[in-house]
Amino acid sequence: MLQKKEKYVVAVVGATGAVGNEMIETLEKRNFPVDKIRFFASENSAGKKLKFRGKDITVESINENSFKGIDIALFSAGGERSKIWAPVAAASGCVVIDNSSQWRMDPTVPLVVPEVNAHDLSWHKGIIANPNCSTIQMVVALKPVHDAARIKRVVVTTFQAVSGTGKKAMDELMKQTADLLNFREAECKVYPHQIAFNVLPHIDKFLENGYTKEEMKMVDETKKIMGDQSIKVTATTVRVPVLRGHSESVNIETEKKLSANKVRELLAAAPGVIVVDAPEKNIYPLPLHCDGKDEVFVGRIREDESISNGINMWVVSDNLLKGAALNAVQIAEVLTAN
Amino acid sequence: MLQKKEKYVVAVVGATGAVGNEMIETLEKRNFPVDKIRFFASENSAGKKLKFRGKDITVESINENSFKGIDIALFSAGGERSKIWAPVAAASGCVVIDNSSQWRMDPTVPLVVPEVNAHDLSWHKGIIANPNCSTIQMVVALKPVHDAARIKRVVVTTFQAVSGTGKKAMDELMKQTADLLNFREAECKVYPHQIAFNVLPHIDKFLENGYTKEEMKMVDETKKIMGDQSIKVTATTVRVPVLRGHSESVNIETEKKLSANKVRELLAAAPGVIVVDAPEKNIYPLPLHCDGKDEVFVGRIREDESISNGINMWVVSDNLLKGAALNAVQIAEVLTAN
Repeated sequence: MLQKKEKYVVAVVGATGAVGNEMIETLEKRNFPVDKIRFFASENSAGKKLKFRGKDITVESINENSFKGIDIALFSAGGERSKIWAPVAAASGCVVIDNSSQWRMDPTVPLVVPEVNAHDLSWHKGIIANPNCSTIQMVVALKPVHDAARIKRVVVTTFQAVSGTGKKAMDELMKQTADLLNFREAECKVYPHQIAFNVLPHIDKFLENGYTKEEMKMVDETKKIMGDQSIKVTATTVRVPVLRGHSESVNIETEKKLSANKVRELLAAAPGVIVVDAPEKNIYPLPLHCDGKDEVFVGRIREDESISNGINMWVVSDNLLKGAALNAVQIAEVLTAN
Repeated sequence: MLQKKEKYVVAVVGATGAVGNEMIETLEKRNFPVDKIRFFASENSAGKKLKFRGKDITVESINENSFKGIDIALFSAGGERSKIWAPVAAASGCVVIDNSSQWRMDPTVPLVVPEVNAHDLSWHKGIIANPNCSTIQMVVALKPVHDAARIKRVVVTTFQAVSGTGKKAMDELMKQTADLLNFREAECKVYPHQIAFNVLPHIDKFLENGYTKEEMKMVDETKKIMGDQSIKVTATTVRVPVLRGHSESVNIETEKKLSANKVRELLAAAPGVIVVDAPEKNIYPLPLHCDGKDEVFVGRIREDESISNGINMWVVSDNLLKGAALNAVQIAEVLTAN
C-alpha cells in the first residue's frame, strides 16, 4: 500500500513514448504532488534529457535497483518490459500503475477506471492495471447506464486513431498522406496496409476465434472493470486515418427501458462525461474536437427501435489522455488521496 | 414494360456527376446493348461534351420532350429532379432506373438489388428505384444468410467514403488534407466539419427520432429489398476520410445457428460476393482494394459469442459501382434479358 506523504517520488517508465510524454504533461498539468521525478526508457534513449516543470531530467535505463525509493511508477513501456520490471518495482515497495495489457486480466491485479471502480484500488498488491484505451472511454459512458438499467449486451464498433499505436504510426500516416498527395507510393512499415485514405479492421494480433486481441480486450476488460461477468460484449475494432481521438459506435441493450432523454440526463450528471448532443445544429462528438481534452464525450444518443430496451450512442475521447496517461494519473490521485 | 430489342436507346440523366460518370463507364465496360446514348444534365453543363465509346456526345438540358424515343433512362441527378422528370420519362414510355431516394419507399415502385430481388422487377410501372449505396452492399451480404437462417436483427455501423457525397466532397477531402499538411487551415464547404483526419457521425439530414436519413434508409430499404418486414435493423452511419469504398461492421442475429465457416461457405457461393477472410495473413476487405471493383467483399466473419446465434462481418464495396452505377446497369441488364 502507498504510504501517505505530502509529496511522492514518481517514476515514468517508457518516458520517451507517446503515452509516456502525455503522462509527464498530465502530472505537470494536474499539479500532482511530485517530490522527485525519474524517467526510464530503453537503452537507446538513456542519457536523453526530458523537461519536467522546466527542469532537465536525464532518462535512465532500468536495472534491479532502479525502483528503490520510488513511491509510484507509471509504466507505459509495453507488455514485455512490464512483465519483467513491474514485479521488481512492486517488490521494492513501489506502487506500479501499468498501461500495458500484461497484468490486466490477472485476478490479483485490479483493473481500474476511477469513475467506475475506484473501490477496486483497495485490494491491490503493488501492481494496478490501466485498461485498454478503447475500453476506458466506453465504460465511463456505460457505467451510469448500467447503474440505472442494467446492461445486458453491448455491440461496439470502434474508429481508432493511429496514436494508439504510437508515435511511429502517427509519422506513418502523415508521411503516407504527403507521399500520396505528391503522386508517390505510400510506404507501409507500421501497419500491414496503407492507413492514409483507408480504414483497417485490424488492431493488435488476431486470435484463434477470429477476433483481434483489441476486440477481446473490450469484451473481457469491460466485465472486470464493471464487476459484472453477465454483461455480454461483442466488438469490431477498426483503425482510421485520424491522429488522435478514438470514436465508438456503441449499441446497448438494457434490462430496464431508458428513454434517450433519460440517458442524456444520466450521462450529463456522470463524472468525466460531457454530453455533446445537438444534431440539429450539427453538434456531436468529433475526434478532432476532443484532442487534448480530459473528458469522454457522448452524443448521437437515441433509442434503438430494433429491440425493446436499446440505446445507440457515439462515444469519443482522447485515447492518449483518458484512454491512457490521464487515467493512470487519476489512479495515482485516488491512491494519494486515500 | 420494356420492349425486347437488339439494342436500346439509353439516357443518362445527371451525366456529369460522380455517379453519372460511373454509369457511362459501366455501360461501356459491360458492353451494354446501346443503340444510341443521350446525356442530360443541368443547364450549367448543357453543351459540354462527354465521350461514349470514343465518340463525343453533347450534354443536353431536359425538357418535356426529352424522353421521346428513349427506352431506358438511368437517373442520378438528385431527388428533386427525379421527382419532376422520372414521371415525365415514364409517361413517354421510357423505363427509369433512379438512383435518388425519391421513389425508393413508394409502394408502387420496386427497389431492386438484382442478386437479392430481381423478381420485383416484374411489377414495375415505369420507375425502378436503385437503393442507397450502404444498403445495397449490406443486403448482398445478408441475403444468403437470411435464406439459410432467417435474420432477426442487424446492428450496423458504416465507414463511408466521401465520394458518396459527390465529386465536390472528394475535392474537399484532398484540399483540406493538403492545406493541413502545409500548416494552413482546413476550409469546410461541403461538410459542416473538417473531414480530413477526422470522422463525422453524420450522413444526410437528421430526423426527429435522432437518426439521420442515411441511417433510416438502411433500416427501411433493407426490409423492402429483402421482402421481409420482420427484419429489425439499427444503424449508425459515419463519414470517414476515404475517397472511395464504403466499409460496414455488420452484426447479425439469426433464428437458426450458423457457424462462421458455414457463413463463409454461403457467401463464397453467393452471386456478387467475394469472401476475403484470412486474417492470420492480414487479409481482409479494405476500401482501398475494392476501388473500381464490381463485387461486395466480405471478411472478418466470426461468431458473436454475446448471443446464441450471432455473426459479425466486415463488408466493403465500391460505393460508386455496386453502391450506385453498377447496380443500376445490372437492373437494366435484367430488364433487357427478360
